[in-house]
Amino acid sequence: VTGALSNDRIALRLEIEDFNTVYAEHLDAGHLDAWVELFCDDAFYRITARENAEAGLPAGIVYCEGKGMIKDRAFAIANTAMFAPRRWQHFITNTRVLSLEPNEVICARANYLILETLADGRSRIHQSGTYHDRFVRVNAALRLKARDCVYDTEMIKTSLVYPA
Amino acid sequence: VTGALSNDRIALRLEIEDFNTVYAEHLDAGHLDAWVELFCDDAFYRITARENAEAGLPAGIVYCEGKGMIKDRAFAIANTAMFAPRRWQHFITNTRVLSLEPNEVICARANYLILETLADGRSRIHQSGTYHDRFVRVNAALRLKARDCVYDTEMIKTSLVYPA
Amino acid sequence: VTGALSNDRIALRLEIEDFNTVYAEHLDAGHLDAWVELFCDDAFYRITARENAEAGLPAGIVYCEGKGMIKDRAFAIANTAMFAPRRWQHFITNTRVLSLEPNEVICARANYLILETLADGRSRIHQSGTYHDRFVRVNAALRLKARDCVYDTEMIKTSLVYPA
Repeated sequence: VTGALSNDRIALRLEIEDFNTVYAEHLDAGHLDAWVELFCDDAFYRITARENAEAGLPAGIVYCEGKGMIKDRAFAIANTAMFAPRRWQHFITNTRVLSLEPNEVICARANYLILETLADGRSRIHQSGTYHDRFVRVNAALRLKARDCVYDTEMIKTSLVYPA
Repeated sequence: VTGALSNDRIALRLEIEDFNTVYAEHLDAGHLDAWVELFCDDAFYRITARENAEAGLPAGIVYCEGKGMIKDRAFAIANTAMFAPRRWQHFITNTRVLSLEPNEVICARANYLILETLADGRSRIHQSGTYHDRFVRVNAALRLKARDCVYDTEMIKTSLVYPA
Repeated sequence: VTGALSNDRIALRLEIEDFNTVYAEHLDAGHLDAWVELFCDDAFYRITARENAEAGLPAGIVYCEGKGMIKDRAFAIANTAMFAPRRWQHFITNTRVLSLEPNEVICARANYLILETLADGRSRIHQSGTYHDRFVRVNAALRLKARDCVYDTEMIKTSLVYPA
């Protein structure tokens, strides 16, 4: 590996990309139980508008502290979505490692695009935004300590927002 | 490379990503002859709805066994598309190596998004889905033994579906 | 790294991907001053339609020779965009190194998708296209010697085109 990038950061980015792909696969397959397991027990998970995030406001249309809340939220979504069957697909790109902190916390970000397909068969943009992440290792595997999903798109029906 | 990912899987993923980019370039440039050469002689190629795939049904809006059928289909598309000039662009992301089988078959997947731009100049989502792939090596280079394109989007005019 | 890809090309692609992510972050955050610094002093930057590019025509809806022109253009855009607040998000995928020239010029390409979100909160496809790049190293870091943004999407209001 040449130039300004170190081997460690490159290797970490490749590993996080794999993590994000598995994350997307679980959500798109509706395997919310498996999705929840990608978080730490005390994980923070939020979906919020870019305006909020830039203003430093804590509010979010989804706001979870701890895996229990994330799980509750996931099941609520699964039940709601049954009334209007639809499919989601995540495209997660432009992953970047921002910093390696001494306590083994990895700060990273990525862009995400979620497409939604309803019964009419057309795919639309459901949500687009940026993940602001903090990863830690649990038994060698990466787990999310915090995922802050900061979106540009303002969803009309917030009750039907799917995990980003 | 740290943690749970082995060097081999990382290297393979990077190689498949390059393959998928060349695949997209050929399709987007309309170089269908070059595109066909990315498949093995006895390759399987299908485009099918997620419902079909999940139900284990063999049907697909495109169903090809062998390079000859893939080539025939490609030329039919090229001729049809001439009646309504349009451009396509593929975005292939979230590539992942699933398994390395002892017989050198590599199972992998990736997400794809195809945008379509017609004469009015606007870009729309043509198709979004997931590739389920089996790669083999032919003279060291990767070739597709099977590409199953499982889409979420239900296209209205199936006669104009472009290779995914 | 196995097979047909050399370590050098892989390492370069990974480094360019990081570059492109930083490039996208600067544009999406509106940090145009930082964005301009990713170009060489004598850089070429153009946004043009695929028809133009394929016909070998020099015209472009944005055409800049040198960092000064790029900077002027960026500030003009920032001022214009203030009249209709909007957000952009770049997804840059399928990066590929085409060649390593003896004079240290790196030819590469990538696909880009720009989403635009207006005050109504909906995200739309603003522009989709392909970067045709020439990179050089300035003090070890990659810098753009030329970025030719060749788009499929025909924008209606060209005065509001955001840097691709």
